[in-house]
Amino acid sequence: MSKIKVGVIGTGRIGALHIENISSLRQKAQITAIADPFMDNLEQLAKDFGIPKTYKSYQEVLNDPNVDAVIIATSTNTHAEIAIAAAKAGKHIFCEKPVDTDPERIKEVLRAVGEAKVLFQTGFNRRFDHNFRRVREHVKSGAIGDVHIVRVTSRDPAPPPIEYVKISGGIFSDMMIHDFDMVRYLSGSEVVEVHASGAVLVDPEIGKAGDVDTAIVTLKFANGALGVIDNSRKAAYGYDQRVEVFGSKGQAVALNDKPTTVELSTEDTVSTDKIPYFFLDRYTGAFIDQFIEFFDAISENRQPICDGLDGLRSVEVALAATKSLKEGRPVKAVKNQREASFCL
Amino acid sequence: MSKIKVGVIGTGRIGALHIENISSLRQKAQITAIADPFMDNLEQLAKDFGIPKTYKSYQEVLNDPNVDAVIIATSTNTHAEIAIAAAKAGKHIFCEKPVDTDPERIKEVLRAVGEAKVLFQTGFNRRFDHNFRRVREHVKSGAIGDVHIVRVTSRDPAPPPIEYVKISGGIFSDMMIHDFDMVRYLSGSEVVEVHASGAVLVDPEIGKAGDVDTAIVTLKFANGALGVIDNSRKAAYGYDQRVEVFGSKGQAVALNDKPTTVELSTEDTVSTDKIPYFFLDRYTGAFIDQFIEFFDAISENRQPICDGLDGLRSVEVALAATKSLKEGRPVKAVKNQREASFCL
Amino acid sequence: MSKIKVGVIGTGRIGALHIENISSLRQKAQITAIADPFMDNLEQLAKDFGIPKTYKSYQEVLNDPNVDAVIIATSTNTHAEIAIAAAKAGKHIFCEKPVDTDPERIKEVLRAVGEAKVLFQTGFNRRFDHNFRRVREHVKSGAIGDVHIVRVTSRDPAPPPIEYVKISGGIFSDMMIHDFDMVRYLSGSEVVEVHASGAVLVDPEIGKAGDVDTAIVTLKFANGALGVIDNSRKAAYGYDQRVEVFGSKGQAVALNDKPTTVELSTEDTVSTDKIPYFFLDRYTGAFIDQFIEFFDAISENRQPICDGLDGLRSVEVALAATKSLKEGRPVKAVKNQREASFCL
Amino acid sequence: MSKIKVGVIGTGRIGALHIENISSLRQKAQITAIADPFMDNLEQLAKDFGIPKTYKSYQEVLNDPNVDAVIIATSTNTHAEIAIAAAKAGKHIFCEKPVDTDPERIKEVLRAVGEAKVLFQTGFNRRFDHNFRRVREHVKSGAIGDVHIVRVTSRDPAPPPIEYVKISGGIFSDMMIHDFDMVRYLSGSEVVEVHASGAVLVDPEIGKAGDVDTAIVTLKFANGALGVIDNSRKAAYGYDQRVEVFGSKGQAVALNDKPTTVELSTEDTVSTDKIPYFFLDRYTGAFIDQFIEFFDAISENRQPICDGLDGLRSVEVALAATKSLKEGRPVKAVKNQREASFCL
Repeated sequence: MSKIKVGVIGTGRIGALHIENISSLRQKAQITAIADPFMDNLEQLAKDFGIPKTYKSYQEVLNDPNVDAVIIATSTNTHAEIAIAAAKAGKHIFCEKPVDTDPERIKEVLRAVGEAKVLFQTGFNRRFDHNFRRVREHVKSGAIGDVHIVRVTSRDPAPPPIEYVKISGGIFSDMMIHDFDMVRYLSGSEVVEVHASGAVLVDPEIGKAGDVDTAIVTLKFANGALGVIDNSRKAAYGYDQRVEVFGSKGQAVALNDKPTTVELSTEDTVSTDKIPYFFLDRYTGAFIDQFIEFFDAISENRQPICDGLDGLRSVEVALAATKSLKEGRPVKAVKNQREASFCL
Repeated sequence: MSKIKVGVIGTGRIGALHIENISSLRQKAQITAIADPFMDNLEQLAKDFGIPKTYKSYQEVLNDPNVDAVIIATSTNTHAEIAIAAAKAGKHIFCEKPVDTDPERIKEVLRAVGEAKVLFQTGFNRRFDHNFRRVREHVKSGAIGDVHIVRVTSRDPAPPPIEYVKISGGIFSDMMIHDFDMVRYLSGSEVVEVHASGAVLVDPEIGKAGDVDTAIVTLKFANGALGVIDNSRKAAYGYDQRVEVFGSKGQAVALNDKPTTVELSTEDTVSTDKIPYFFLDRYTGAFIDQFIEFFDAISENRQPICDGLDGLRSVEVALAATKSLKEGRPVKAVKNQREASFCL
Repeated sequence: MSKIKVGVIGTGRIGALHIENISSLRQKAQITAIADPFMDNLEQLAKDFGIPKTYKSYQEVLNDPNVDAVIIATSTNTHAEIAIAAAKAGKHIFCEKPVDTDPERIKEVLRAVGEAKVLFQTGFNRRFDHNFRRVREHVKSGAIGDVHIVRVTSRDPAPPPIEYVKISGGIFSDMMIHDFDMVRYLSGSEVVEVHASGAVLVDPEIGKAGDVDTAIVTLKFANGALGVIDNSRKAAYGYDQRVEVFGSKGQAVALNDKPTTVELSTEDTVSTDKIPYFFLDRYTGAFIDQFIEFFDAISENRQPICDGLDGLRSVEVALAATKSLKEGRPVKAVKNQREASFCL
Repeated sequence: MSKIKVGVIGTGRIGALHIENISSLRQKAQITAIADPFMDNLEQLAKDFGIPKTYKSYQEVLNDPNVDAVIIATSTNTHAEIAIAAAKAGKHIFCEKPVDTDPERIKEVLRAVGEAKVLFQTGFNRRFDHNFRRVREHVKSGAIGDVHIVRVTSRDPAPPPIEYVKISGGIFSDMMIHDFDMVRYLSGSEVVEVHASGAVLVDPEIGKAGDVDTAIVTLKFANGALGVIDNSRKAAYGYDQRVEVFGSKGQAVALNDKPTTVELSTEDTVSTDKIPYFFLDRYTGAFIDQFIEFFDAISENRQPICDGLDGLRSVEVALAATKSLKEGRPVKAVKNQREASFCL
């Protein structure tokens, strides 16, 4: 088939990264238009990457017949509006996470997507990480049998600015949301109950802002399995990203990546490289591979690994965790498995 | 100082192992008496290990002036009675865990011990494991800063016979009790609240017996830290025993031991040794080192690393976890830190 | 400074790879011309990568004033001729290894380069591998003290076609030449003596062709250190590339890369990913990073990490090893350290 | 069968260690006599380990009908005399290495052993190391196919006193002799040619004493395989003991043991335990397991894993390496495979 023609909406840090990554997928797609009302980098980006069209408004991208699919990399509060318009314009959609902070608004998006019969992928890039994908393969292959326990450790190297924390929606909606998606991906099952514990151990300012900076959430899955996620806003040693799935026949464990395999032994110590500090260093490949999936799903006319319902569910679970922490008790998350009506 | 003279009460599987291990500590202690009313291996053990006296009743051991300290390795329901008598007889006491299943009964033991001013060590051998001890050293040295999160994974290779499960007191009192002690040891802080999740995923018979076979417990510590323990009655790949402590300055992680360092690479796979299946293979050194601690604590007239209060607290936390699982909500565990009155 | 304008001469497998890799270094360089008399992919490459000029002959590239530097990726027997012409044309030169099979001919190239005062980098990409570079850093930083022993293991996943073996110049000139450069890089010292052992263990046809398929070479360095390299034409488990440097204060060891960190444990085995099979998978980053070095060296007007003398020395050592194997005795390699006259 | 009755001749450091280790093998053997003309620890050892008889002369041990087998742990120059007398007395023999420094004298021992039809085991304890034994198992099982390359790294943490170096017979006879035995064990084949390189990099006094402190020896085996051993008298980071065997179907690699699995990650570094410094810490298990082999071989009336011919061959190879270093050329070692006449 011919290359997919892509319009990128939003050319801030993540949007610009997406443009660079999609440009490296020359054989699958080409960027035919970019749009951003606020950024003044449009012309330079267009020149650097040989992009024929630049627009100020997303609607112009949607009106461009030379665009098959759009990448929505704008601020969160505009995702739903643009996505619904894109669906109505018949464009396939890759939307950054979270799709929206309000589950009802996400459902509106999913309905529009369902009616338009376009493909919708949520930008949960971690599903495409080489380590986590291998763990998922071991689960899917049956190598570890039925899933019994899923464990995820996810810790940032440093907390965001306190001003950001105040508007972030809290650690569950802002940070652990990735891990809620991860446990759903790894287990292949929905989260039906969560119990959240939290503490303010990193920075008292975070506590004053009404949030916690250290959290552990236990989960129950629809298939009966249990799970646990721990988050910290500050791991002194770097960006700690590990998962493991334990099942009836065995276990698959993904440790952190290290930049090299080198071990240095001296009279004093045996040391290795530190783990990456920056999320883009950790997920370099995943940020590219999510687009391979998006373009392949379009070409093969199939549901992507990570669709709109995944975007909805992770928000629902995050809200349940937030409620659990506040009320100091377990809270039911979603009641039912994947609903077919939302799918392509 | 002269060698400590030891009487071993109970010569079943664990008692016989203790006799063999203490025999290898020739320079610190010598076994001067063994007693068991039910076992017929007394004479053979005495001959094999050059032990001068054998008795049928524990009271005879306590009456023997040639005994400084006793090892109580009888069935759990007799621990308290023997320990109280031993304290009154002025013998130092090493008592297998659990000291008793009833916290009030343990407190009686501790009072007797306190009054008699004898030394009391609970047999939490895992505290002496080379890996976990190293993690504790890193915590104590300040290398990882303030403790924020403690994680323990503890999974048996296979469930015990269902008949045993029925009388075991449940997974928290029978199995996770070791891990409750471990998190207290690693964190250096008391557990103040627990929330337990459980599932029956290994064997439905365990569920019929009113127990769970898979469990995750989240914990809050007096110092503000959070913790999580996961247990399974059946890990197909062996006896999985890992801990990690995450703090303000870093993290210490203890992975499983493997019998050798050998990696085999072929056209098909890269493989290493499996982890030990049997707990005695995993904790071989710890079973010896706990007696080095016991004898050294006696010689140096100091509290052992693992004393009677540790025996009490772990039972209290296990009962709180059992209650949490039943009631589906977090439960307070102990309210206060180590009480000096119980100490030597 | 403005971007370096690059002409690529030779657009076969490696040349095409270089074009792709240089294209990703958009901020440092741009390809302004490509040339190949034999390949019919020129127009497509030019279109795919936005390259303005295509030529049939290398001389046209050298005549193009819009070219600052050339990449010579043609067949080995043309390297010297093109390099000398490029030097005379005042172009900086990146030349694939080996520069030539005849040391005298390489010296002619180096003289031309020296007279023209252009920069010359030999394509020993492995120097830019993340693991080996880290080992070199540990050597340079003094972390391991004076170098005592250098060990290199380098094994291919499968032998080349027997027709190639026959014209390859033998295992030392064709395969171990990379490792001769590696030990010089890691040790920071010249090889002064080699002793080669060889065997035909993989394929008797290789023996019939007058070559060996398994070889171990011990080396003495000018600084007194010892070294050893082992090669095999066939490692069933993949492309085995490891180095270690042992010194007076410690040791740095680089193990193989694995695609993921995932460990799978089952009842039967504990397994991890296999190592890469294909050299491009192993050295993906190195193939890019060698051009970062080339462009940075040009920009900063300094000698590259890997220059023309490195290209000469590795050939000289390979010839000494070939002689050692034939004569069954140690053979002197080069007598003196880096000669300044060859440098920029 | 009844327990084997053992006489230990020589109660210095190693002899005393053997007494302790054999005492722990209570079910297989008991020490019935010890002898040493020079040590005054006999009575204390006898008391500590419940040994009935102490003698001043080895001949008394050989005359004792309550002795089935002897452990010869005296100084090297007395091994042959005692071993020949023990053989004539019909005692099975465990003899510390080297059996003698003169191959002809070792052959006399082997002839006496052959005539007496007693079992003879040389004390190459490293063959019983858990890691190396696993590598050997992988070779024997065929998992790695035909052996192509054997690599051994063996480095001491610090050189012995210079006075010892002067009388040691040189690094090949004193230190690398263990590795010559190791490569024979791992490969299952005899060494037929060696080429030695050496350097004085650790301590110039070692050079003045006519020895080297850093050495690499390449080897050819009777089955066509190649090998390489490197030794250093001083590894700043500890006692470095690694082996690997590469074959037609794969590779088995044994890395160093570390005391724990703990990894500490901080802002500055990721570190693990250092490797053991002391050979007894590294080979604790091997020192016991060699006696299990000795007693089992006696009980099962079979050749031990490590017999008298192994003691001879390692000395022959060491002498060939010494000659190779002196003459700067490869030297033939032994011409033929195991000769049946020396076997039990």
